[in-house]
Amino acid sequence: MSEPSQGAVQPGPIKAVSACPLCEGSGGRILAQTPHLRVIWPDEPGHPGLLRVIWRGHVAEMSDLDPADRLRLMDAVWTVESAMRAALAPDKINLASLGNMVPHLHWHVIPRWRDDPQFPASIWTDRPDRDGARSEAIRQRVRDRLDALFAAVTGAFKS
Amino acid sequence: MSEPSQGAVQPGPIKAVSACPLCEGSGGRILAQTPHLRVIWPDEPGHPGLLRVIWRGHVAEMSDLDPADRLRLMDAVWTVESAMRAALAPDKINLASLGNMVPHLHWHVIPRWRDDPQFPASIWTDRPDRDGARSEAIRQRVRDRLDALFAAVTGAFKS
Repeated sequence: MSEPSQGAVQPGPIKAVSACPLCEGSGGRILAQTPHLRVIWPDEPGHPGLLRVIWRGHVAEMSDLDPADRLRLMDAVWTVESAMRAALAPDKINLASLGNMVPHLHWHVIPRWRDDPQFPASIWTDRPDRDGARSEAIRQRVRDRLDALFAAVTGAFKS
Repeated sequence: MSEPSQGAVQPGPIKAVSACPLCEGSGGRILAQTPHLRVIWPDEPGHPGLLRVIWRGHVAEMSDLDPADRLRLMDAVWTVESAMRAALAPDKINLASLGNMVPHLHWHVIPRWRDDPQFPASIWTDRPDRDGARSEAIRQRVRDRLDALFAAVTGAFKS
């Protein structure tokens, strides 16, 4: 990660938007943080390996950022993707910035496996896992590697 | 767009992967093309404004690209996003690179409106539009602006 968390110029104060959950709260366990963004583990029940990269300022679209900030944000996404691949060895990475419910820039970095309940559809596609066996298998697989994932992400932002 | 389509160094031949629809075909109407990527309009029935940015080489993940190529691909995504906002004025842009079905790097750039049938869910969320009225309203809105969208995208890659 090219952006050091120490020694960097601190951006000016950012106006938090009330009723925005990503302005008012962290959104989950903070694994890494820079003056511009944070990486969090939201502990999504159905997607235990999902991480989010959340931009600090309340901005809706990538094209609202200047090129340097777009680069900062995407560099963090690639850093998380690489750490996730190393720690979890998923069959595929899914990346998405939607923001329809919370229009505050955040990227979903999602590990997918061929035997996960919704594959090859998106995680937002409704595919009930009738007896829960596939979901439970994925949960167990990810839980066993969560400490490795957290260490990989935190370490990648320190280096 | 920083990457000129003329005068750029042509990358070497790329090994096409058989049975990959994005190696074997364009994926839709080509609106812009560089030596590294193309922008297409796939004419998705339920999502008439959706565009895709498709990397030329058969590569699965963003972290498989080197930093310069990642920048090239994302610069094209931001260019499409900006052109789409100018031409369609959607309420939100959704960006996603999934590739579970076709593991050949491609980005979906999707205009969303508060009154579209699935909003605020993702376009992959199953929310039937019972009488089809909302879908038809969006289709009409986008159809009326398709020429402007195509011209904006094509023009942005020429400049």
